[in-house]
Amino acid sequence: MVIKYRLLKEDKKTMARLGEVTTPHGTFETPVFMAVGTQATVKTLIKEELEAMNSQIILGNTYHLWCQPGSDIIREAGGLHKFMNWDRSILTDSGGFQVFSLAKLRDITEEGVTFKHHKNGAKLFLSPEESIKIQNDLGSDIMMSFDECPPYPSTYEYMQNSVERTLRWATRCQKANKNKDTQGLFGIVQGGEYLDLRKHCAEKLVAMDFDGYSIGGLSVGESKEIQNNVLEYTTPLLPKDKPRYLMGVGSPGAILDAVERGIDMFDCVLPTRIARHGTAMTHSGRVIIKNKEYERDFTPLDDKCDCYCCKNYTKAYLRHLFKANEMLGYRLLSIHNVNFLLTLTKNIRQAIKEDRFLEFKEEVYREYGLNDNDKDF
Amino acid sequence: MVIKYRLLKEDKKTMARLGEVTTPHGTFETPVFMAVGTQATVKTLIKEELEAMNSQIILGNTYHLWCQPGSDIIREAGGLHKFMNWDRSILTDSGGFQVFSLAKLRDITEEGVTFKHHKNGAKLFLSPEESIKIQNDLGSDIMMSFDECPPYPSTYEYMQNSVERTLRWATRCQKANKNKDTQGLFGIVQGGEYLDLRKHCAEKLVAMDFDGYSIGGLSVGESKEIQNNVLEYTTPLLPKDKPRYLMGVGSPGAILDAVERGIDMFDCVLPTRIARHGTAMTHSGRVIIKNKEYERDFTPLDDKCDCYCCKNYTKAYLRHLFKANEMLGYRLLSIHNVNFLLTLTKNIRQAIKEDRFLEFKEEVYREYGLNDNDKDF
Repeated sequence: MVIKYRLLKEDKKTMARLGEVTTPHGTFETPVFMAVGTQATVKTLIKEELEAMNSQIILGNTYHLWCQPGSDIIREAGGLHKFMNWDRSILTDSGGFQVFSLAKLRDITEEGVTFKHHKNGAKLFLSPEESIKIQNDLGSDIMMSFDECPPYPSTYEYMQNSVERTLRWATRCQKANKNKDTQGLFGIVQGGEYLDLRKHCAEKLVAMDFDGYSIGGLSVGESKEIQNNVLEYTTPLLPKDKPRYLMGVGSPGAILDAVERGIDMFDCVLPTRIARHGTAMTHSGRVIIKNKEYERDFTPLDDKCDCYCCKNYTKAYLRHLFKANEMLGYRLLSIHNVNFLLTLTKNIRQAIKEDRFLEFKEEVYREYGLNDNDKDF
Repeated sequence: MVIKYRLLKEDKKTMARLGEVTTPHGTFETPVFMAVGTQATVKTLIKEELEAMNSQIILGNTYHLWCQPGSDIIREAGGLHKFMNWDRSILTDSGGFQVFSLAKLRDITEEGVTFKHHKNGAKLFLSPEESIKIQNDLGSDIMMSFDECPPYPSTYEYMQNSVERTLRWATRCQKANKNKDTQGLFGIVQGGEYLDLRKHCAEKLVAMDFDGYSIGGLSVGESKEIQNNVLEYTTPLLPKDKPRYLMGVGSPGAILDAVERGIDMFDCVLPTRIARHGTAMTHSGRVIIKNKEYERDFTPLDDKCDCYCCKNYTKAYLRHLFKANEMLGYRLLSIHNVNFLLTLTKNIRQAIKEDRFLEFKEEVYREYGLNDNDKDF
């Protein structure tokens, strides 16, 4: 296996676990949060800033990099690590999620998906082989299988057929990987809310022996209860000695809930996306920095935070930057928000080490001022 | 004097001079380039990045900071240095230039100028006293007098009246300064292209004993020849033991021409403004990074440059960032361009030290691939 997972500790009261993942570009502890660098940049940030927050692995988006600048250019540059000046681990998605969420007029066949570019309308085609070829060009440490991402809700019959196709595509992805010694590949468990389909998909994928497993088709509009049920049911079906990844999840509450149910890896655009519009995540909840109440607030964004933004700037200054449309505001809030989720996962790891994960979870919920039923949390 | 100037060396063949300026926030050598931080931020950059380029003094804009967030808020924050997290020197303009260039429907009286906000149309009033009050709130090291900035061309009669008013306003500015021990004040020599008016204005201001002198009313549409003539005529009228500042000038050619004629200080939005649109200044001329020719160019922007951008990224990556509308491109090119002008002035100082300023100037002109007649240079 290119990707190694070492189980360090299991929580006594929940399915939470502490682990260690090793990729060709480094070793890090899990549960881990991966900042998203969609277009070969974690928006507004540079390597040194991410390193200062102890960011160990980031995500790149296959679909976006394929469209711009093109995977051939990144291959010629020496791969994504070199192109974007990042020498720690990188995970790339398969492009599947973007094909099914951004693209228009798609046509799914056994061979792959024909669809139109999300901006210019150009006709494009992605298949398991094409997705892996692009990811081989990018040279990521962890690649994802190309799967179908059915909408929520889907009928049982549709989901059953989709899962079978996803399984056939998973086999083709394994075969297509030309860099078996340097790039790991994760399988993706689909099946929607239908637990028997989840079981079937998980068992088949486990038999194919992937480097790790992702649980797909969640956070697509279903209730928190369904998401938690599916996770609780599915993770025990996965091998203990492989990492488990919940794609696209990154709100503090959802991370805590998923760690409790045995998930190790997370990614989400949330921290940089809300930073762009002036929203910060703090230990006591979200802060909308443009609000009038911060006009003369000369204290840091979050007094419990040790990020570059909180150590050097006040809420009044950050509010001014957003009122004045200054990019530095977006940059400073991105630092703060990414650091917030990296610190949250660091504290989760510490809590598991100290056998107090559930207490820690309750503490975060209480301080954030929210409860289990708040879906934004 | 709050601002001290020490003349270190005069060039033998030209009026170029090497000096040292001391403000309450530090000492730096001149000729110097000041990056512009219009709205309490040098666009996209932080203190550490500016310090790494040896940026010693930056500029803040009184008009913009007065409109947003308001000078009272900056005063309450402890002044502009503390508000924006910058502990080296700051120079603030008087707001006069913005009033005369951005604002609409202005009405000039002896008392001051009534005008409308450049965006929301609100009625505003600035006077010498108000401008100094705002600059006292900001707490800059060097303040500028509030002057009238007549358009080019103006008739002799208009200019004559304007110069007299500017002189009366200069006296009022001196009187209005409440922080005489901590904030220096520069006088501004006006007079357009009329040399006798320049002489009259300079002599009156010198008699008033300012901390330094600026030559105003240039770079407003006149020819390079007129600009050079005015500079050559005016700087000898100013005291040798005070710094001389040419406002708003920052193209490499104009800096070289003005240093040759005895100017010590420069500021310009050029490096960050053109960076925003993907234009870089390099030793061999301007580079439009979006151009197709850089698509697979895996070399640095400028192989003679040691800035963070050139040490870590390729033209192909920078082009991709701009094609993908990623803010990081703007940020990296801002670092590069500001560093380019700071390096140019550093090299100018070195050339003066080594008695080879003219040779250095010719070398820059030759390498940039342009000549004296190119007005963009």
